[in-house]
This record gives sequence, C-alpha cells and structure tokens, in this order.
Amino acid sequence: MKLSLIAKAIGISFTGEDVEIEGIHTLDDASSSQMSFLDNEKYINSLENTRAKAVLCNAAAAHKVPEGCIALVDEEPYLKLALASKLFAPAVIELEGAEPLIGEGSFVSDKAFISKGAIIGKNVKILPGAFVGCLSSIGDNTVIHANVTVYRDCEIGKDCIIHGGTVIGSDGFGFAHTKIGEHVKIYQNGNVVIEDDVEIGANCAIDRAVFGTTRIRRGCKIDNLVQFGHNVDIGEYSILVAQCGIAGSTILGRNVVMGGQSATAGHLTIAPFAQFAARSGVTNDVKDGSKTYGGFPLMEQRSWLKLQAKLARLLKPKIPHVK
Amino acid sequence: MKLSLIAKAIGISFTGEDVEIEGIHTLDDASSSQMSFLDNEKYINSLENTRAKAVLCNAAAAHKVPEGCIALVDEEPYLKLALASKLFAPAVIELEGAEPLIGEGSFVSDKAFISKGAIIGKNVKILPGAFVGCLSSIGDNTVIHANVTVYRDCEIGKDCIIHGGTVIGSDGFGFAHTKIGEHVKIYQNGNVVIEDDVEIGANCAIDRAVFGTTRIRRGCKIDNLVQFGHNVDIGEYSILVAQCGIAGSTILGRNVVMGGQSATAGHLTIAPFAQFAARSGVTNDVKDGSKTYGGFPLMEQRSWLKLQAKLARLLKPKIPHVK
Amino acid sequence: MKLSLIAKAIGISFTGEDVEIEGIHTLDDASSSQMSFLDNEKYINSLENTRAKAVLCNAAAAHKVPEGCIALVDEEPYLKLALASKLFAPAVIELEGAEPLIGEGSFVSDKAFISKGAIIGKNVKILPGAFVGCLSSIGDNTVIHANVTVYRDCEIGKDCIIHGGTVIGSDGFGFAHTKIGEHVKIYQNGNVVIEDDVEIGANCAIDRAVFGTTRIRRGCKIDNLVQFGHNVDIGEYSILVAQCGIAGSTILGRNVVMGGQSATAGHLTIAPFAQFAARSGVTNDVKDGSKTYGGFPLMEQRSWLKLQAKLARLLKPKIPHVK
Repeated sequence: MKLSLIAKAIGISFTGEDVEIEGIHTLDDASSSQMSFLDNEKYINSLENTRAKAVLCNAAAAHKVPEGCIALVDEEPYLKLALASKLFAPAVIELEGAEPLIGEGSFVSDKAFISKGAIIGKNVKILPGAFVGCLSSIGDNTVIHANVTVYRDCEIGKDCIIHGGTVIGSDGFGFAHTKIGEHVKIYQNGNVVIEDDVEIGANCAIDRAVFGTTRIRRGCKIDNLVQFGHNVDIGEYSILVAQCGIAGSTILGRNVVMGGQSATAGHLTIAPFAQFAARSGVTNDVKDGSKTYGGFPLMEQRSWLKLQAKLARLLKPKIPHVK
Repeated sequence: MKLSLIAKAIGISFTGEDVEIEGIHTLDDASSSQMSFLDNEKYINSLENTRAKAVLCNAAAAHKVPEGCIALVDEEPYLKLALASKLFAPAVIELEGAEPLIGEGSFVSDKAFISKGAIIGKNVKILPGAFVGCLSSIGDNTVIHANVTVYRDCEIGKDCIIHGGTVIGSDGFGFAHTKIGEHVKIYQNGNVVIEDDVEIGANCAIDRAVFGTTRIRRGCKIDNLVQFGHNVDIGEYSILVAQCGIAGSTILGRNVVMGGQSATAGHLTIAPFAQFAARSGVTNDVKDGSKTYGGFPLMEQRSWLKLQAKLARLLKPKIPHVK
Repeated sequence: MKLSLIAKAIGISFTGEDVEIEGIHTLDDASSSQMSFLDNEKYINSLENTRAKAVLCNAAAAHKVPEGCIALVDEEPYLKLALASKLFAPAVIELEGAEPLIGEGSFVSDKAFISKGAIIGKNVKILPGAFVGCLSSIGDNTVIHANVTVYRDCEIGKDCIIHGGTVIGSDGFGFAHTKIGEHVKIYQNGNVVIEDDVEIGANCAIDRAVFGTTRIRRGCKIDNLVQFGHNVDIGEYSILVAQCGIAGSTILGRNVVMGGQSATAGHLTIAPFAQFAARSGVTNDVKDGSKTYGGFPLMEQRSWLKLQAKLARLLKPKIPHVK
C-alpha cells in the first residue's frame, strides 16, 4: 500500500516521494519495506537504528529518525498506529482461494471446517466442530480434537495434540486509547506457530502476535485453561499447569515449569529451567534458572514458605515470659 | 400463568382472587404483573414498596406485604422461588417459529447455526461452528468467530468482535438449598446484552441474568478466559484483562481497569475509572475511582507494594546493633 | 496383548511364560489380568500386595514383587510405563461400529455429532456443535448445550445440564520425563463419569482418568471455567465456584464448597462439608469439615482475616506514646 494512502487514511499530512509499504513492525524488526512507530521515549535508540521505511512519531522525536526513513509526525503516534494497523488486516475469512490440501491417511470430519488455502499433513485427525482458518497448516500425525478453533495464518507442527475447545490465533489484547477514554483496536496481524510434539489441553487461549509470531516451541506440554498473550515465546519442553497465564511478549527459556494458576507480567525474560510454584506471580525478569520460585511478589519458594510460617506465628497468643 | 396454578405447582396453599402472573423479578424491579420473593430480612423495605402482584415470603414477613399484593407464605420462600422459576423457563431450543433474518452483506457459514427468530444485521460475519440462539440478535458489522455460543434471547451490538469459544448467555449460578443439602436450580430467565463496539476474547463465559439483564456496555474490551456472573453491569470502556472474574450482580463504572487474574465478589459497586492491579481481590464497594488498587484483601496498590516490601524484610537475618 | 509384545515394544528383555495383559492400572487397583508399575519407593507396600500380573519396577524393588507377578525391570520404570500406556490407547475416533442409539423424545441437532456406539437417553437435548464421542452415554432429560465436547467412553447421568464450550474427557496431564528433559505422554486410558443431577457451567475442563475414572457425583453444581485434573472424585452436592481448580487425584467429600479462583493441590482428601473462601489454596488434606477455610497457605478463614488485619496495621505510621 502506498504511504500516501496510509497517511491520508490516518489523517497525517505527508509530502515528498511516495513509497510502497508492505506492513508494520517494531522499530527493531521492521524491514526496509515496512513502517514502524515510536510510542515510548525509551526506544529512542531503536528509532535511530531502525531499517523501517517510515516511522510514526511525535515532533520531539522526529529529528532522531534516521536518513532514508520518512517521519510521519503526530502528537498521538500510537493512536495513528492503531488506525494504520487496520489497513493491513487480512480478511477474517477468505471465500476465494485454493482448496485446502489434505495429506494421505488423514481423517477430517465432515463436521469440521477447513478453510481456503489450509494445508493438512499426513495421518492427521481433525474431529467434528474443529475449525482451521485460511492458509493455516497442521503437521503430520497431529490430532485436533472437537471444537478446537485455529484462526487463519497459523502453523501447528507434527505430532501435536490439541484438546477440545482450545483457541489458537485469537487477537492479542492491544488497544490505543483516545483522550476521552475510548479504545482503538490495534489489529493483530501476526500469527501463532506451535512447533512439533506439543500437547495443549482443553479450553486454552493462545493469542496471535500483533506483529511477527507467538511461538510455542517443541515439546511443550500445556494443561487446561491456560492463557497466552500475544507475542509470547515459550521455550522447548516447558510445562504449564492448568489456569496459568503468560502475559504478552514474555519469553520463557527451555524447560521452564509454571505451576497451576501462576502468572507472569508482560515483556519479561525467564531463564531456562526456572520453576514456579502454584500461584506464583512473576513481575520481573528471572535470571537464575536453577531455583524454584513462589509467592506474589515473587521470591524463592523456600523463602516464601519461611515467610508464611513467620506470619502465621503472628496469630499465636502471646505467652508472657516468666523469669 | 395463573397464580393458582403456580401456587399449586410449588406446593403453597392459595385462596382468593386468581391473577395472571407474567414472570418473576426482584422486589424493587417487579412490575404489577410479576411475582417476587423475600429471602433476606434486609430487603424488608423493598417488600413494603414492591409493585409485585404476589410475593413469596415467610410468615414473619407476611404482614409487611403491601395492599393489593398477594402473600404466598412458606417457611422456605427461596426454595419455592426456585420451583416457580422453572415454570417460566423458556424452551432450550425452539423448533418452530420465524426463520432467522440475515442482513445484507452478511456472511453466515453453512457450518454455523442460526436459530429461529434470530436477527442478524448487515455486514456481519458468523464463522463455522458458531451458534446463535432463538430470538437473539447480532448488530451490523459484528464478527462472531468460530465456535462461539450465543444462547437464546441475547443481544450483541454493532461493531463487536467475539472471539472463538466464548459463551454468552449461559445460565447464572443460582440455587436454593434444601435442608438436607441438595441444590435446586433457580432458572435463569434473564438475558445478556452486549452493547456496541465491544471486543471479547477467546473462551470467556458471560452468564445470563436470573431476572433482567447482564450488561456489557459500549466500548468495553475484554481479554481471554474472563468470567462474568449473572446480572453484572460493566461500565462503558472498561478493560478486563485475561482470567479475571466479576461475580454476580457487581456493577463496574465506566473505564474501570481489572488486571489479569483479578476478581470481585458479588453485589459490589465499583467507581468509574478505578484501576485494579493483577490478582487484586475486591470484596467491598470501591467509592474512590481516582486510585489504583491491589492485593487481597484490597488496598491501594502503593500500600500493597510497601507492605510486601516490609514483609520481605522479615526474612532478613537480624544484625545485632553495635553501639 | 501378550506381555512379550509389550516388553519388546518398550525395550525390556523378558523371558519366561507369556501372559495376556488387558490393561494397566495402579498397584492397588490392578486386576490379575493387568500390569502395573512402581515409580516411587513409598508405594513399596502396595507392590508387595498387588494382584497385577506384571509390574514395571527398578532392580532394587524387584525382589519385592509378589509370587505369580512378573517383574519387568528397568532403571526408568515410569518412562517405560509411558511407552506401554500408548499400546493400550483406544483410537481417537472409531469410524466403524454400532450406530448411536437415540432415546425417545430426544432432540439431537443435525449440527451436533454423535459418534459410533454412543447411547443417548430419553428426552435429551443436544444442541448444535456438541460432540459426543464413541461409546459415551448421556442420561435421560439431560441438556448438552452448543459446542460442548464429550470425549469417548464417558458417561453423563440423568437430569444434567452441561453448558456451552465445556470439555469432558480431555486427556489428564501426565508425562514421564527423559534424562534430557523431554516429556513422554502417559496415555490417559480412563474416562469421566458425571452422575445424575449435575450442572456444569460454560468452558469448564474435566480431564479423563489416567486409569479408572474421574468422577463428579450426584447433585454437584459447577460454575464456569472450572478445572478438574484426572482422577479427581467430587463428592455429592459439592459446589465449585467460577475459575477454581481441583488438581489430579484429589477427593472432595460431599457438600464441599470451593470459592471462586480457589484451588487444591493434587492427591488430597477433603472432608465433607468443608468450605473454602475465594482464592483459598489447599495444599494438605483437610480433616475437619465443620469449618470455613481461606488464604494460601490455608488456615481458618477467620484466622486469615485476623492475620490480614494485623498485617495491614504494619502500614500505619507509628504514633509515639505520650505519658
């Protein structure tokens, strides 16, 4: 899409040479055919080094836009990003396109629905009520249980099991906010990739990335009712117990264990092999993966146990000291 | 239904002039063609002022029933309410009735199911596996993703997005209890109204009202796996992050923010603009909407942080003071 | 299946008389035609008394295997169990077999799917998008709402209501682990039994047993988004409020009440009539069912309230005592 058209659509004046923009990404990850945005001064270094062809930013940051990159200046660049994201959103469902390909030995229930352009591997089983969106793919030997929903553009690997009711590829939770408190959707134009040998329990929710990919790596095992925000990256062989939640953009190293009802904040990095007891609440990066953590705020699990024991003693009646 | 028939069905003796009863509602909200009930002495004022045509109550309260209102006296009025509620429950699915209306430009998958009497607006998209119950309506431009369930009698506004697996209009969680500990269902004969410009994430659950309406107001944005009890009322532009829960009859003002895994008790009123950190547990009304709250029990978030810091210091080894 | 074939498939050398093995179960519950396993020294007594025809165990325990029982010795018996479990896993879906039986007066939507060998009672309602797996049964008068998933081999009683999106019979969360941190699925070859008069809310997840049965007993009432691990046993008339979770193998007595977002650890026994406030975290057996508990770690709810009040006072500025 021509930048001039984007600028017009989102209400920013733009003069100069027009260019073709193929999508939107972060300052760090945008290619030279994409546009980007600066919504937080702490990313100013990323702005100075971006390869993006154009950037939404405010006037104060405009002079940091690198040569060859076009500044689209506005006092609310994040709001303009939201408006621009809609221009790149693919259709919810494609009615035209290639018939889906179904691999040899696969069973697809006639009460499931496989969308245009989807590719189903060999020996796959897709049960009644399952939905596979446009251009999504399912690897060999994978089982998609009844009433699973896989949105468009997602990839599920080989030898996976996806249990009933789980939703893969729903929109991430991202909005810009107007001055009067309304919320403007940032279209989530990324996808979800589930690697090989992953099992996902019933009624989980795995959001697609805003840009790029939400990724669940090889060999992860996920229990029921688990929440994944957009752009999370779950390391190989991690174990996530029921009702836990991983907020957006958090990265788990390999073999992390998240206990039941535990949760992380967003934008964190968790060291490989770290273990989190049930109900842990992780709000900072975890750099030491050799330990078991617990509590909220988070501490080592043995410290949390000790602290709780101390607190419980506050309830004991005071026994007067007798000399 | 004739009151004499209701009384007979629920095992209460009734003499006097028979009347037609059109439904059941609370003492405050019952019209003069409905019946009501008193199950808690604290609502005695409501009893004295009710417009209901008949009231289930115990003998002690019977003399407070206003003139023109018929007292149906029983030692277990709440249990009798449960029995009566069943008499007014509509069919789970209607096999007869008007064909659904589908507005211009709408796409309804032939693997979705639109029930009798439903009304679908213009430019709506309804994906495979979605279910829209009898007499429910979907506003213009709304997207209903795959495997969404909308029960009967519910209304979804314009420009909404409902993500995969979400259930709207399931029965609220209401039971009367017998003396031997069995539970008798109170049929949930109300509905759910989702206003315009609301987005609801994947695998949420929004219960229909017992009487009246569970309402999610204009512009609310709701993440995945969020729970709404019956009769909640969520104010305009509120934001509810993943895995939070709002218990029955709680009212949120506009622009309230509920963090991930936070929750409220039932029957609360939360001031507009109040913000709740992740894992907040709200058990009382919140009257000051200018603050951010956290913790369980709830306090200001900055107090909670200070308190947790103090508690963590209890773990430090005591260093002897040296003069 | 011949034991010699099993041994070969899982890589254990086996000589001696061959026997027919019909399945796998725990040491305590295995019949004389089943095999079992010892993965934890604390069950050594169970090993000595097992009726199993063969047992997977390590060399140290082999001499405790009772007469008539064949020891299959390996340094990683739990990993071998995982491999063996796959041999007994039934097909995900049967394409051959008896047509399902539908009882008199029942309504089954032509957009629901009833699998081979399933038995549907009288006056049942099965709404669009619901799935009933092979050989499963649904009792008289039960309502299965839209997009419910019932896996194979499960039983749902009479007079039940199962709300939209709920999944019954998904695989329990059980894995053996290799030395390099990979996880090997223990196939969950048990089932789920829901007894009569149970109501289950929307988007719950109820895992099938690894061996034997996950059981929800008569008259239980379960809210939305509730998690049940494999092999739990929920006592009659228990009430489980939204978003709570019961971990694997935990047994609740009758009329237990679990508050919203509460949870239990696995392998616990909870006394009848015990009540747990919202957010309770139960990590030990509860023997006194006459009380209301709360907090995490768990204590009596009134103690928890007292403790929280004390802690809140730590925030108060210290006022100097004036004589």
